[in-house]
Amino acid sequence: MKADVSLEHLYRVFTKPENNDSTLAKIERHLSDNLSDFLSQHVVTKKTSLEEIEQDFREYLVPESPVFVSSHAQDLLDKLVSHSVNTSSPTFIGHMTSALPYFHLPLAKLLVGLNQNLVKIETSKAFTPLERQTLGMLHGLIYKRETNFYDQYLHSAKDALGAFCSGGTIANLTALWVARNKILGPNEHFAGVAKEGLFAAYQHYGIDDMGLMSSKRGHYSLGKAVDVLGLGRKNMLAVGQGSQVLKPEEALRVGKEYQARGKKLLAIIGIAGTTETGHVDPLEELSEVAKELGTWFHVDAAWGGATLFSSTHRSVLKGIDKADSVTIDAHKQMYVPMGAGMVLFKDPKSSNTVRHHAQYILREGSKDLGSTTLEGSRNGMAMMLYSSLHILGRRGYELLIDRSMQMAVKFAQLIQQTEHFELITPPTLSLLTYRLCPQHLSNMAEASDQQMAEVNSQLDTLTVSVQKQQREAGKSFVSRTRIETESYKGISTTVFRVVLANPLTTEDDLRAILEEQVTLAKNTKIWQELSKQSIERIA
Amino acid sequence: MKADVSLEHLYRVFTKPENNDSTLAKIERHLSDNLSDFLSQHVVTKKTSLEEIEQDFREYLVPESPVFVSSHAQDLLDKLVSHSVNTSSPTFIGHMTSALPYFHLPLAKLLVGLNQNLVKIETSKAFTPLERQTLGMLHGLIYKRETNFYDQYLHSAKDALGAFCSGGTIANLTALWVARNKILGPNEHFAGVAKEGLFAAYQHYGIDDMGLMSSKRGHYSLGKAVDVLGLGRKNMLAVGQGSQVLKPEEALRVGKEYQARGKKLLAIIGIAGTTETGHVDPLEELSEVAKELGTWFHVDAAWGGATLFSSTHRSVLKGIDKADSVTIDAHKQMYVPMGAGMVLFKDPKSSNTVRHHAQYILREGSKDLGSTTLEGSRNGMAMMLYSSLHILGRRGYELLIDRSMQMAVKFAQLIQQTEHFELITPPTLSLLTYRLCPQHLSNMAEASDQQMAEVNSQLDTLTVSVQKQQREAGKSFVSRTRIETESYKGISTTVFRVVLANPLTTEDDLRAILEEQVTLAKNTKIWQELSKQSIERIA
Repeated sequence: MKADVSLEHLYRVFTKPENNDSTLAKIERHLSDNLSDFLSQHVVTKKTSLEEIEQDFREYLVPESPVFVSSHAQDLLDKLVSHSVNTSSPTFIGHMTSALPYFHLPLAKLLVGLNQNLVKIETSKAFTPLERQTLGMLHGLIYKRETNFYDQYLHSAKDALGAFCSGGTIANLTALWVARNKILGPNEHFAGVAKEGLFAAYQHYGIDDMGLMSSKRGHYSLGKAVDVLGLGRKNMLAVGQGSQVLKPEEALRVGKEYQARGKKLLAIIGIAGTTETGHVDPLEELSEVAKELGTWFHVDAAWGGATLFSSTHRSVLKGIDKADSVTIDAHKQMYVPMGAGMVLFKDPKSSNTVRHHAQYILREGSKDLGSTTLEGSRNGMAMMLYSSLHILGRRGYELLIDRSMQMAVKFAQLIQQTEHFELITPPTLSLLTYRLCPQHLSNMAEASDQQMAEVNSQLDTLTVSVQKQQREAGKSFVSRTRIETESYKGISTTVFRVVLANPLTTEDDLRAILEEQVTLAKNTKIWQELSKQSIERIA
Repeated sequence: MKADVSLEHLYRVFTKPENNDSTLAKIERHLSDNLSDFLSQHVVTKKTSLEEIEQDFREYLVPESPVFVSSHAQDLLDKLVSHSVNTSSPTFIGHMTSALPYFHLPLAKLLVGLNQNLVKIETSKAFTPLERQTLGMLHGLIYKRETNFYDQYLHSAKDALGAFCSGGTIANLTALWVARNKILGPNEHFAGVAKEGLFAAYQHYGIDDMGLMSSKRGHYSLGKAVDVLGLGRKNMLAVGQGSQVLKPEEALRVGKEYQARGKKLLAIIGIAGTTETGHVDPLEELSEVAKELGTWFHVDAAWGGATLFSSTHRSVLKGIDKADSVTIDAHKQMYVPMGAGMVLFKDPKSSNTVRHHAQYILREGSKDLGSTTLEGSRNGMAMMLYSSLHILGRRGYELLIDRSMQMAVKFAQLIQQTEHFELITPPTLSLLTYRLCPQHLSNMAEASDQQMAEVNSQLDTLTVSVQKQQREAGKSFVSRTRIETESYKGISTTVFRVVLANPLTTEDDLRAILEEQVTLAKNTKIWQELSKQSIERIA
């Protein structure tokens, strides 16, 4: 329904909330009263193909005339909400998005109501010290420095304990930008890479390549970082065929070989919770390797960082305090809405390698947060984490983390106890991977190479088919990926991947997911074919 | 007040909204009923110094135990909200943040309630086509291609009309990353900069430097971009002493000189609305210069892009459709909350120079938005813009833009009519700069160089002092910057900078701001000193 085109109408849109019985007000009340009920009532995907959904989003002209908010709100429900993903569903265990604490709903409103811009104090005021404090708390969780240290650096204009950003990708990029600018930094004969550029820096330092090293499970953002920073994707050294972690001895060997060829190793990336399997690299040992190779040590703890809240499990991350920089995402295991990434620096002076100023903001000596961040204008997401840290507390987070770990262990047991399933990678943090494998093929590790390859390929087809069907049925969601495992001689297999981080997920949910998968599988053609196979043991 | 440390308590936090009479529920109702009243009641800065505010944010340990939401909510009001900035105040005209339409408050809740992740379809579904459509609408606004074009590209898996991102800085960086990877792209003898790195690319293409060109008013994000991308800050060619725009003939001359020295010009940046003065570069002519120099043409329309909604004013941006890429921020003149930047590409194939894949998401052929974005996981901010475009419509935006322009013209008139003020840069788009200058010094342009420098320096001190005092008094806010102007022979002067984009700002507000500034000025010591000065005309 068209609305007036008049300034008076627009003033109302800026100043008058919707009536209590308007569609948007009803949506809001429903969200507030019972989010889970709202989602199960409105996220009712009938259209299964994306192409069908796209039909509602084909118009490319900006609509000419204003419409009433309520009429648009109904459109949102019909076209958008109904075909969204219920990421908070207890049976949506395929990605790192989960149910959120309720208080984030009103806080989201407060955030938009205040609409601060964190790039500078003039548009954020108390949000600036709040963000610095929140970064300090995460810094303290990782590095556990003494009170004096935080007294000196928490609010220092010349230093930064870290940076808030939109997510782990920008956090990783920021860390490696800082590292690159430090390692190719200025000296008495050279103004540094930031000023002179990478070509001049390579010439000055006498190198022709610079690279990063991580396990093969390194996040794809690392590939983007070597591209953006000018290092080149061929210098992303992904080490360890078939292994889920970066083995220190292999890291040392590969690093020394790389250096022996006259190349510069910029950083070793330790992963604390790989995206695909949840594995944690041996951080303590890798920090030693980094020291021996004379390189930066970055830990990508986007997923696993929150494990530090747990007294029981934090030792898995032993050595993280040796990292020069650490990435953590609060929108993962800290149950904060999307958009809350962070990078922390061991040395509060590190980020001075990327410090910049402008005339109208970020003036020299100011405490404006934008002076050392990759992003410019940013919203006050730090408040969401600040509030979560206070409302849940370390012990609240600990309970949540411990519960997730327990659920992963339980799910692994279920998988091993249920006919036709094979656990591929054991629960590490709260992730695991598995696949369907008809029971009579369970001794496949004994097959000949050729048969193993053939059967695996059929199983891959089965996994893809079941994963897609289950997603489209809409009751539950697991994701899938391809990984190499040592048990299958390093060949790639397609697997289901689950993340057990939703505190509302029960054992019954997990049982139902497995049952549905078996039922779906048995209706596929490939299952019939597999039933004719049997393993011929190699002599 | 401490809460239980139990899973039962935590489940409640995840599943039960706050009681109707809880502090957070009250905050929320107040926000919903009357945002402006909420802000004027709670944003009551008594502490003027940042150091005083920091006292409330000194603790660096994560709080050990959970607390009740209400007790934390009260803390938020006392420590955070009270010392925030009322960015929606009609007298807060110092930055690009303004009042927002009311519907964004409930939408913010919907966004968090849905908590989609736009990196991939599996966690966003209808949000993916929605974001593509929204980008398409902005593309259509700029490039006005035919229906067939959008039918073909809007939802194409192999192409992207642009990318959503957290803000203009990431948008500019993305555009220049794409440009760098295209210009140093692969050929039959070389795998391209993305794979081989910048050093190898420079060697292959026989260059030792690559640079960007913009006017001296180029946004500081361009400096970050040349740093991050490895070009080096010395290759940021900021052209035109004393001028607010990039003059085509000067751009051509500087570009040719640069190229004659064997260097590669990566891109010319045309600015549509400089951050400091609102000036728009002659885009049409600059596109010709870019063509002649054989370089990428990027337009930073983070501020000014929305001017395209206005039939009256859009011609100011003539030539923007010649740009290879354009940056626009919806959180500026499109009245969307912070965090809605965009880059648009003329050629839907452009962003393939940065396309990347991963095993578990962004698979080849998928429509996952993350395949060509710099950021990874992202929230569904595109919905806020989508809703704004529908609810306000082009004609609604047109009214708002036209009104902002009129207000800027009115304010300029007020400044010129009011004793002791000097307009420094005229209203361009809705920005202008001015300063206090005692009436008897108004003929300063006639002074000797030495006296001009002396008096200007005193006026600078005055401007800084008045701007700070006004900000601290808390009734209104204008920002300040330093710019070079032709009228003062290119020397830098400190000026007040205002952005007239808040539709709730009235002429009375503007009059009151000037009155307060004169009052504050007259109480300064420097005013007394200035009153003793008189201009000695040069012979």
